Amino acid sequence: MTFHTFTETRLRNFTKSVFLRMGCSATDADLATDVLLRSDLRGIDSHGVARLSGYIRLWEKERINATPNIRVVHETPTTATVDGDAGLGLVVAPFAMKIAMEKAALYGSGWVAVKNSNHFGIAGYHALLAVEKDMIGISMTNASPLVAPTYANERLLGTNPMCYAFPAGKYPPVVVDMATAAAANGKLEIAQRANQPIPDGWAQDQDGQGTTDPNALKNGGSLLPLGSDKDHGSHKGYGLSATVDILTAVLSGANYGPWVPPFVAFLEPSANPVGEGLGHFFGAMRIDGFRPAQDFKDHLDNWIERFQNAKTIDPAKRVIIPGEPEYAFEQERRIAGIPLVEPIVNDLNELADKLQISRL
Amino acid sequence: MTFHTFTETRLRNFTKSVFLRMGCSATDADLATDVLLRSDLRGIDSHGVARLSGYIRLWEKERINATPNIRVVHETPTTATVDGDAGLGLVVAPFAMKIAMEKAALYGSGWVAVKNSNHFGIAGYHALLAVEKDMIGISMTNASPLVAPTYANERLLGTNPMCYAFPAGKYPPVVVDMATAAAANGKLEIAQRANQPIPDGWAQDQDGQGTTDPNALKNGGSLLPLGSDKDHGSHKGYGLSATVDILTAVLSGANYGPWVPPFVAFLEPSANPVGEGLGHFFGAMRIDGFRPAQDFKDHLDNWIERFQNAKTIDPAKRVIIPGEPEYAFEQERRIAGIPLVEPIVNDLNELADKLQISRL
Repeated sequence: MTFHTFTETRLRNFTKSVFLRMGCSATDADLATDVLLRSDLRGIDSHGVARLSGYIRLWEKERINATPNIRVVHETPTTATVDGDAGLGLVVAPFAMKIAMEKAALYGSGWVAVKNSNHFGIAGYHALLAVEKDMIGISMTNASPLVAPTYANERLLGTNPMCYAFPAGKYPPVVVDMATAAAANGKLEIAQRANQPIPDGWAQDQDGQGTTDPNALKNGGSLLPLGSDKDHGSHKGYGLSATVDILTAVLSGANYGPWVPPFVAFLEPSANPVGEGLGHFFGAMRIDGFRPAQDFKDHLDNWIERFQNAKTIDPAKRVIIPGEPEYAFEQERRIAGIPLVEPIVNDLNELADKLQISRL
Repeated sequence: MTFHTFTETRLRNFTKSVFLRMGCSATDADLATDVLLRSDLRGIDSHGVARLSGYIRLWEKERINATPNIRVVHETPTTATVDGDAGLGLVVAPFAMKIAMEKAALYGSGWVAVKNSNHFGIAGYHALLAVEKDMIGISMTNASPLVAPTYANERLLGTNPMCYAFPAGKYPPVVVDMATAAAANGKLEIAQRANQPIPDGWAQDQDGQGTTDPNALKNGGSLLPLGSDKDHGSHKGYGLSATVDILTAVLSGANYGPWVPPFVAFLEPSANPVGEGLGHFFGAMRIDGFRPAQDFKDHLDNWIERFQNAKTIDPAKRVIIPGEPEYAFEQERRIAGIPLVEPIVNDLNELADKLQISRL
């Protein structure tokens, strides 16, 4: 696999010019760029600029509105529902998270459900906005149906990620940012490219049988929930995914379950939707609503140190703190640049030609 | 295995008399009894009256305070920290959940972290209190360290359950109530009694190697997080368990990680605690803080029907809605009574003799 490495600034300028070409305002283009770049910086290559042409294809199909009127449609002092007006999730999500944080600043906590949105990038970006203000950040989204619940032979749920982010003191924030499936689709795609089998427990084929075929999903199979099978707790992964689906969509008025519109433009959304767009859910809680922030941070530092120093099975490995690898990537890539695999570079340059902007 | 079946009323009277003998007020004895019985009614036999003698042993060691001064020690309009004063978690937890619900009634949502508590029974009991008021209920607790994080050969986390409960319309509430380990300790105990191997992926032995020995935990091994191994997402189960530990204990001032006091009285708590007792976390959100409650319930009913009618791998099975089996048990056992295995009946009768109350 050939990689080409770009500076953060170069990728930012390129990405912003794409969003401007789509018709976004300068502010929105900056924000959407920031969300995508943060994913590449944090080493989550599947959710960054690699998806840029996917967003454009949805916009071409008029399933993304570049100039949305994002607004609160229901509200109490600490809760709200936001209508994303079919805008980019990359713009809708930070808007909603900001409202959650404003409510938390006033009342201790804030909770915002979002309907009529699109793919919001990495969940961690939005949760980390709260961490900067000494708040706990929570972020979830539902997604295109790819996962079969325990016993099912149908794709009824997305990989529906949930993220919890906590500010530490001398250490980076603890960020639990996870799909509720056993493995995300991106991991299958890597195995496809390498033409290698996938581990048992990631997917089932079109007949509902366990498979190690990396093309299972393409051929009508499904991803499996975290836990993989009933004996190993797949009903828990399914339960977590259901929780995300209900909080993001049943609560907001978005589409849920098999009705969630697909991210890929070549698949049409349901002709009989049960709601509007896809859904998100955000939360912010002030740490000092529970105890002084410094006390919390000191104890979280102690928690981190105890786990980092735990006895391990393999002396060459140590226990990893959630969010630690992404933080390390971010420090490194801000300086060394962001490596993209050649097919992504080619895809972005084709996009540039189509939109008549400068190539990468 | 021999079972003896008791009416709910008989088990209630017995259990209440035990708590009264411990020195609980009549109100607290009623409440603690209600929490334990709900577990037996809902078919979660490991968390009901089977634990009664365990609570008594902790009280005998003065690790449970039968007449606690449970109080709010920190507060904003929608957040609070409660000091459980070493009371029964069965009493402390509903106290805290009630505060969360009162705050939600006024401001849309309420969030309460609890320190200095003990084992609180099933997470679902507390979350369901909110559901009765058309709120979403959330409930979590940390617990004695039994689980090794990914790569660790140490027990650093409890089975740390999280529960999310949602009110439906014509169907029972959706209740996701799950330990964040691959399998709970109770499942190992069943395999021990039957002298049968456990599935790979539930536990590791004292050297950190995967094992099918049902006695692995007794012999110095550890439970594994949901996901079982790194390939199947054990870092996600570990991340969820860490989230519970941080919300319940780092946020409240309780003990966390390996410092959480053991539930069994024959193991001493840490000589150098990092907090007070164990920790819980509760949340309540008014549904109508986001959309009219009836709209939510109608859509959740639709969600439930779609999942119940999903195509399944085995035509004899259908997709189970989270909370559905427990609800079915509850309907059945309220009428047919609660079956207890003989060793539990004997244990309860020995307890009765010791406390000089009537046998079951």
